[in-house]
Amino acid sequence: MKTRPTIRDVAQLAGVSVGTASKALTESGKLRPETRARVRAIAKEIGFRPNDLAHSLHRGQSQTVGVISTDSFGRFTMPIMEGLEACLSERRISVIMCNATDDPEREARHVETLLGKRVDGIVVTARRADRRPPLAVDTHGLPLLYVFSRTEDPDALCLVPDDESGAQLATAHLLGVGRRRLAHITGPERFEAVRLRRAGFVNALQAAGLDPGAAPVLAGVWSEAWGREALDRLFASAQPPDAIFCGNDLIARGVIDRLRERGIDVPAAVSVVGFDNWEIIAEATRPPLTTIDMNLTRLGHEAGRRLIELIDGAPSTGLQRMPCSLVVRESCGARAPT
Amino acid sequence: MKTRPTIRDVAQLAGVSVGTASKALTESGKLRPETRARVRAIAKEIGFRPNDLAHSLHRGQSQTVGVISTDSFGRFTMPIMEGLEACLSERRISVIMCNATDDPEREARHVETLLGKRVDGIVVTARRADRRPPLAVDTHGLPLLYVFSRTEDPDALCLVPDDESGAQLATAHLLGVGRRRLAHITGPERFEAVRLRRAGFVNALQAAGLDPGAAPVLAGVWSEAWGREALDRLFASAQPPDAIFCGNDLIARGVIDRLRERGIDVPAAVSVVGFDNWEIIAEATRPPLTTIDMNLTRLGHEAGRRLIELIDGAPSTGLQRMPCSLVVRESCGARAPT
Repeated sequence: MKTRPTIRDVAQLAGVSVGTASKALTESGKLRPETRARVRAIAKEIGFRPNDLAHSLHRGQSQTVGVISTDSFGRFTMPIMEGLEACLSERRISVIMCNATDDPEREARHVETLLGKRVDGIVVTARRADRRPPLAVDTHGLPLLYVFSRTEDPDALCLVPDDESGAQLATAHLLGVGRRRLAHITGPERFEAVRLRRAGFVNALQAAGLDPGAAPVLAGVWSEAWGREALDRLFASAQPPDAIFCGNDLIARGVIDRLRERGIDVPAAVSVVGFDNWEIIAEATRPPLTTIDMNLTRLGHEAGRRLIELIDGAPSTGLQRMPCSLVVRESCGARAPT
Repeated sequence: MKTRPTIRDVAQLAGVSVGTASKALTESGKLRPETRARVRAIAKEIGFRPNDLAHSLHRGQSQTVGVISTDSFGRFTMPIMEGLEACLSERRISVIMCNATDDPEREARHVETLLGKRVDGIVVTARRADRRPPLAVDTHGLPLLYVFSRTEDPDALCLVPDDESGAQLATAHLLGVGRRRLAHITGPERFEAVRLRRAGFVNALQAAGLDPGAAPVLAGVWSEAWGREALDRLFASAQPPDAIFCGNDLIARGVIDRLRERGIDVPAAVSVVGFDNWEIIAEATRPPLTTIDMNLTRLGHEAGRRLIELIDGAPSTGLQRMPCSLVVRESCGARAPT
């Protein structure tokens, strides 16, 4: 097995001392330009790399941050990680990924490991944006940021999608294509996102002068099967809806499948809008689904930017809700903006 | 902002020198047991943590490995990461996640960063298990492992799922429930997985004494829409199949949806088996989908185990195919094993 070249190899080949080689490579000390150039050329030739660990120790920064996720590398964490990593890698900051599942002991162990590695900051993320207890380990003022996750700690900086205004966007879109008999089929009430999305739905109806009390809201689970079941319930009434805002794309998929099975045309007779812009679902739905995108990759990128600010010493706290956007496909009858 | 306690704080509070405090915490040197105990108690109380960076530099191991993915945190990488991280975290080895997309320059930059951080090994993964060029940067014998990815380099250790025997399992299951007129609907021929799964299908038919030439194979794309289209083609023939092995779960979902639309009962009239065990698809299909699981989490765990062996100095090379398994749900008419 080849071994990695060391500073000693560089020095020997350049015919200088280790101290001189080190000065040449770190741009420090006084050296003749030819010596510096020769040492650097040899280092490059044999593939010597300065030891960043040693630099980190010296500088007190490791150029590394940790991510603690309770999402088991799930579908919400992934786009967030993608944005975060893209942002941080521009600053040559590496991301250590720790999967805490929902086990507080495992989480504490991960935090200890990250502190031992002298990470420059920690990002906490989750499978849902609900409140969670603060990290159980004292991180002694280390920059700390919650993304798609929030905590009670008023000193923490938390970034979450703006569910309520996302739901308002969806509802306003249904009203904008001329629908008036709206219904909302959504997930479990214990999710804050469910409560916020319903509030956005209600607000948008009120803003349009409609009576929210006349608009059915059915809360169930996050599944296609629930979408089909809830659709059947709505269409058992004398006055079924002409538009349905669904709490996520899986529910919307079930709703649209059942409408087809009942011979009801989407979007001619009923408009449907989802939430998530989970492309594998939204693009395969017949017709393709108009839906709300939480912009999670952008959220992750913003988390990286804000974490760098924290690392650079600019304090920042509080809960910030980042905007969602509407992705227009074919399920509402509106044309995509050109 | 609180600052992290240092060894100096511990020494001062314990009324000893920094050298003594360090000896007490690292179990080295000769000290009275009471002194050692007092120093350790104070360190614990004020939350002092030994600097693992310094230890890493001393030991020449960073207890960190890098993952280079071209999958943009996609659905194949995630279960692999989950298994890998679970395995490595037992040894308190942290995982740095680098997203190389498919950009060789970005990949090279990531590798340079990882080498600078003195990672103990690198894992390369991808969105498909096909051959790829070796890493473009000389890693000087650093332990290196490809998972769900392979390379030409005969010195590399590569772990991939055994697509061919997975496909044999699927086909044998269809034969086992009494089907004889089998068809295969699959993805693009340029994927090695497509060629291997077809080979498994053909082998299983031959092993059962059936003529593979009589079993249609339709290659297209990895989508529900292709599943529906291919199903229509098969049922335009005089002798449609009574069983369909699909190259992935999305295709199977399209096949089953179209069979329902044509009024053909699954599994009474036609058995369908998928590939991936992508639960969000497989469980929502009506009926739930029997499918092949590539056991990617286990593959990731095995990658971690093998990487540790490499780090510990046991050389290992070659291509290893890890077994897939059959997950029985309801789409073939067989009972799940109890």
